[in-house]
Amino acid sequence: MNHCVLPTADGVWRHLRFAPGALAGEQAIEGDAAIAVADGKIAWVGRGDAVPESFAVLPRFDGRDALVTPGLVDCHTHLVYGGQRANEFAMRLSGATYEEVAKAGGGIVSSVRATREADEDTLYAQAARRLEQLLAEGVCAIEIKSGYGLALEHERKQLRVARRLGEAYGVTVRTTFLGAHALPPEYAGRQGDYVELVCKEMLPALASEGLVDAVDVFCERIAFSLEETERVFQAAKALGLPVKLHAEQLSDMGGAALAARYGALSCDHIEHLSAEGIAAMREAGTTAVLLPGAYYTLRDTHLPPIEALRAAGVPMAVSTDHNPGTSPALSLLLMANMACTLFRLTVPEAIAGITRHAARALGLQDTHGVIGVGRPANFVLWQLRDGAELAYWFGQQPERTIVRQGRIVKKEVAVA
Amino acid sequence: MNHCVLPTADGVWRHLRFAPGALAGEQAIEGDAAIAVADGKIAWVGRGDAVPESFAVLPRFDGRDALVTPGLVDCHTHLVYGGQRANEFAMRLSGATYEEVAKAGGGIVSSVRATREADEDTLYAQAARRLEQLLAEGVCAIEIKSGYGLALEHERKQLRVARRLGEAYGVTVRTTFLGAHALPPEYAGRQGDYVELVCKEMLPALASEGLVDAVDVFCERIAFSLEETERVFQAAKALGLPVKLHAEQLSDMGGAALAARYGALSCDHIEHLSAEGIAAMREAGTTAVLLPGAYYTLRDTHLPPIEALRAAGVPMAVSTDHNPGTSPALSLLLMANMACTLFRLTVPEAIAGITRHAARALGLQDTHGVIGVGRPANFVLWQLRDGAELAYWFGQQPERTIVRQGRIVKKEVAVA
Ligand SMILES: [Zn+2]
Ligand SMILES: [Zn+2]
Repeated sequence: MNHCVLPTADGVWRHLRFAPGALAGEQAIEGDAAIAVADGKIAWVGRGDAVPESFAVLPRFDGRDALVTPGLVDCHTHLVYGGQRANEFAMRLSGATYEEVAKAGGGIVSSVRATREADEDTLYAQAARRLEQLLAEGVCAIEIKSGYGLALEHERKQLRVARRLGEAYGVTVRTTFLGAHALPPEYAGRQGDYVELVCKEMLPALASEGLVDAVDVFCERIAFSLEETERVFQAAKALGLPVKLHAEQLSDMGGAALAARYGALSCDHIEHLSAEGIAAMREAGTTAVLLPGAYYTLRDTHLPPIEALRAAGVPMAVSTDHNPGTSPALSLLLMANMACTLFRLTVPEAIAGITRHAARALGLQDTHGVIGVGRPANFVLWQLRDGAELAYWFGQQPERTIVRQGRIVKKEVAVA
Repeated sequence: MNHCVLPTADGVWRHLRFAPGALAGEQAIEGDAAIAVADGKIAWVGRGDAVPESFAVLPRFDGRDALVTPGLVDCHTHLVYGGQRANEFAMRLSGATYEEVAKAGGGIVSSVRATREADEDTLYAQAARRLEQLLAEGVCAIEIKSGYGLALEHERKQLRVARRLGEAYGVTVRTTFLGAHALPPEYAGRQGDYVELVCKEMLPALASEGLVDAVDVFCERIAFSLEETERVFQAAKALGLPVKLHAEQLSDMGGAALAARYGALSCDHIEHLSAEGIAAMREAGTTAVLLPGAYYTLRDTHLPPIEALRAAGVPMAVSTDHNPGTSPALSLLLMANMACTLFRLTVPEAIAGITRHAARALGLQDTHGVIGVGRPANFVLWQLRDGAELAYWFGQQPERTIVRQGRIVKKEVAVA
């Protein structure tokens, strides 16, 4: 649990092969390569036969010809919530109607109730187990949203847990305030009042406590309107906070264009994104976040406009969208496979989607998502032959060594 | 690698909760339960407060309120092959045509070539890493097919590797001869001659070497005809070997009804299975093996007739169909999730699919697939609250302890 007791990665990591796109900028090193780590940061990267003399005294790590990627980045998660909804999943499959599921306490309301009822330590313990699964695969930075509290104290509780997880596990956590995720039951029929509460009370209070790195809204017919979304964005802007959006998942609301006007970091889901939305995102430098786990779980058939995004040069990230209702996904490698299989991303696009572009979606492009001198040491050594294997196998647990924030996190593989 | 050096599971395992359907017969134990293991076999199963005095001297294991299932059974795999096809996966996504992929050495031919070129130890080492991933999840019995050698010496090599894996890892391996998987290039235009070779030379030779537990055919327009399939089945029957079939995956060939006439253990894939096929399978007691990983990878949209199978009471198994082309899947839990999400199996059906019914598909119903007195000790302790969680989360690596063939196989989880 305490990241700091893990062994330091300081030293020279030899016998590495860099996966395509692993290095900062357009840099590429063919063949045998090495990384020098000092004080938890990357001090040097280069060919294996060109390690500078000055590093000769450092400890040596043998990468055994591993394929190296940057640490993975999961840029869209709802990781902190009370309870889980396996029972609802089972009921639906057994033919229960929506009414029966609702009567049994299902749906997002059940996660709101369970989140409100749980104390901070309980929420922490439950989220920690999920986080451990993502970290064990190689995640070095993760976004965690609020949005199951839907009241100041409970949203605070979620965001505090997110911060605690980052500190305890030595992983970069970006918190996102998603007060405008759903209408809490006590505001039924008074959606405007709730948006007012989000903008005037919840957001300013949580921001002043340092709990908010970005602000998100679920803009959809069944959630918040374009106009309500803009009110939240204005409140974020007034506080100097970046915005992002759950946009055009079920219909084209014009949310992406609005978000782009506010310089959004990302627009997420975007199955129904229009050409205008794409153009606006390109102009604004907004990242498209693809969430194949939700698409898969919902058995959606409306594909996001991948070819148009590619043609426009909009960077595409890929994330778990981990949440208890529509994406109980716990593997970014599986999301890379799903992005290829379901969305027809190329393998390099899928790998960039869970590293470089995911970092960009969080505004972390200067520190995460690629391997480069001066950055924190976040990288993964995979015992794989071919970079394409990262997305080809599915349900895999490749043998790997993870360096996260300058510490060696070993993941044991299968035992006999 | 050597199963026998693992600690014995002999003793009393307390503080367990049995997942629904975990116990042999219609037995069910609500609440706190225990298992006694002696000499690698299950000696007693019952309520936690009713452990017989005679076991009081045995070592104790604290299950920490774990959910217990039988060891998992993967009843349809092509686990042993040379090379892999990640490059082909990547090429296809980058827009390469079938011709370009073929020119670059892609397709099943490439697996045949790589399998023929590899020596036995190389095949063993490659398959062992894949097997380890499945074992680490809780697999205790697995079927392994030949079918990438397509010549006596190479089919022999595949089956010998399958046997060696079973011995080295202490896992029950059922070998299946699938000489009629594809037409080897050297028999182009002479399919009848190849079927003759399969029936008259390959199968008898391999059977006499004790390498064949069952016989399979790929019955499809692009593979072997109904008439050719029957010739292979007759050869199997003459040797007293059970049969099974890759049936109705791409079209309704009538293969299931034929297989049922030969008392087949299972018909596998069966997306295009007819009502007649279902009736014949029910009559014959043939198990339906569902392969959602291939359905997913091929982006198939033609669902197998789940409701009709359910109505007919045909047992449904679920397997990885692990193979380098259409299902590079390495997780049975993910297959359970896919069987629910894509095929709408209920959770109990999915769990039975990877345990009880999978054992039946291999003719192992008397020893595997359920927990019962006198059977080898094969079970998994999952640190999960609810049985539905086995299928609900996806890409998960739940904390678990595995007992396989009476030995404790520990799988470490995420580290900080
Ligand atoms: Zn989301
Ligand atoms: Zn198969």
